[in-house]
Amino acid sequence: MTNDNVYLGMDIGGTNTVLGIVDEKGKSLARISFRTRSDEPFSVFLSNFEKEFTTILSDFNKPLYGIGVGAPGASNKSGVIENLENFNWGRVEIAKILTRKYNKPVKIINDANAAAIGVMKFGLASDLKFFLQITLGTGLGSCAVINGEIVSGYNGMAGELGHTKVFKGNRMCSCGKRGCLESYVSAEGICRTVFELLSSEREESGLREYTYSNLTSRIVTDFAEKGDSIAVKAYNRTGTILGEKLADTVSLFNPKAIVFSGGVVSAGDFLFEPMTIALEDSLLQMHKNSVEIRVSEPDINYAVLGAASLVMNNNGSKINET
Amino acid sequence: MTNDNVYLGMDIGGTNTVLGIVDEKGKSLARISFRTRSDEPFSVFLSNFEKEFTTILSDFNKPLYGIGVGAPGASNKSGVIENLENFNWGRVEIAKILTRKYNKPVKIINDANAAAIGVMKFGLASDLKFFLQITLGTGLGSCAVINGEIVSGYNGMAGELGHTKVFKGNRMCSCGKRGCLESYVSAEGICRTVFELLSSEREESGLREYTYSNLTSRIVTDFAEKGDSIAVKAYNRTGTILGEKLADTVSLFNPKAIVFSGGVVSAGDFLFEPMTIALEDSLLQMHKNSVEIRVSEPDINYAVLGAASLVMNNNGSKINET
Repeated sequence: MTNDNVYLGMDIGGTNTVLGIVDEKGKSLARISFRTRSDEPFSVFLSNFEKEFTTILSDFNKPLYGIGVGAPGASNKSGVIENLENFNWGRVEIAKILTRKYNKPVKIINDANAAAIGVMKFGLASDLKFFLQITLGTGLGSCAVINGEIVSGYNGMAGELGHTKVFKGNRMCSCGKRGCLESYVSAEGICRTVFELLSSEREESGLREYTYSNLTSRIVTDFAEKGDSIAVKAYNRTGTILGEKLADTVSLFNPKAIVFSGGVVSAGDFLFEPMTIALEDSLLQMHKNSVEIRVSEPDINYAVLGAASLVMNNNGSKINET
Repeated sequence: MTNDNVYLGMDIGGTNTVLGIVDEKGKSLARISFRTRSDEPFSVFLSNFEKEFTTILSDFNKPLYGIGVGAPGASNKSGVIENLENFNWGRVEIAKILTRKYNKPVKIINDANAAAIGVMKFGLASDLKFFLQITLGTGLGSCAVINGEIVSGYNGMAGELGHTKVFKGNRMCSCGKRGCLESYVSAEGICRTVFELLSSEREESGLREYTYSNLTSRIVTDFAEKGDSIAVKAYNRTGTILGEKLADTVSLFNPKAIVFSGGVVSAGDFLFEPMTIALEDSLLQMHKNSVEIRVSEPDINYAVLGAASLVMNNNGSKINET
């Protein structure tokens, strides 16, 4: 049984915030994106949000039932966002603020957990109870699901795969540590690897014409598709580092599958082929050839879908966090 | 309300097997140890077990209620031990064999999970719902507990922290992979580090008089206590490697505490001081100074206690595996 309601899912990222209008089957009806401007106070974000929210909603004459928010550092228990690295927001009672403003149900959740809920309810993980969800985008979001429940940890800060240390790695990460996986396999990490290769190798490459500031992982993929060997090598190196590290998480969590989403998955085999080789090479004997790799369509934002689902009434498959 | 029953807990290890008679409060009434002789067929183990079992039981005139077994590769669902690295046993239906022989309840469980149950029911983790249990002995056993439930994974093989890869490590591990944490921080790993240091450093050390085959981690600790600088450095290096790797697991699981047991904990501050420094250095900002380190008495075998508790009737704090 369906109803006519629509739901707003919001995915607040370090660079961009995505708003999506979703029906209760997880179909994305409209999507809009704007700069988060995390270096400004929260009030700036809020007034941008209001504008975009009004715009996206104006096309619908269906009732908006509620708002679900996925954000880094969000606590579903307190409804508060706080302690965000590289955000100038301080402590924001976002659930209370939005509820008061719009008089609708508002729920918030950590962004990586939102993506895991999205793939469980509407995506590649609808048949899975034991899996790792990995979002490859501006950062690396991750979430472990065990027996259908999201692993949140003692105080909701579990699942920081992006800040585990890679083998022999020494890159400075945005978190202030060195060698974090995120600094290698996020969108920017791939660009950093391109610059590493441009410095260490001598072969010609169209990528030699880009500044660091202008390079994106999308551009690297475009060059890889044209056979540019620096671009291909950058993905080889990225995939290898990711695969090695995933072997560790398989040893710890013993998942049935690893599910990937986020913009970077558009790199396809350039990334996932070397990743799978490195993963299989690094797995314990008992895990070899047993872990499924599932990759979502790059243009589905599962964090938006998962966040929106938090305020849906038909929460048939109950989502628990432990 | 107590009763008069006693329970047998068995901890089958790669080198030794420990039998313990335990009362229902987890008090160890007697303990005996014998060589597992894992290179021989299971029938050899079984006949040794029968002899030792008769010996240890002969001192008690209380009724033996049941037998709990902790073993690597043990499945609590099937009652079977199989796929043990370095064991010549093949597939052993140990629960069925022991039940038929002694006409008592028999339950089996993975050895690392047995230790986690032991510390939850009778030990340092009785107040904890989110923790990592690490047994430092012949190998490195580990088990994550989330919301009071043991993480077993999709097919019971989670918790292999010992086979995650250390930063820059390249040692051959007993599992056939290189760089596994176990090959650095197990009892033998510490001895290997001593030999590494004896080769790379020039300072005098009593440890230069030992063969590889005769050296034990206990001897290394004795030398550290006498101020032998190779011994102290070996523990420094071991603790640092362990601490760095634990930071990864804190990022993934967000535990309230890490609980250590096993013979190697007798090294005390020689191990845990450098470990804590490296852990704190490597933690994400949000986790710094938040993870408790709890170290058990070295002579308590929590795997024996946890295994024995499996057949206790008063299983008040229900143990679940997910």
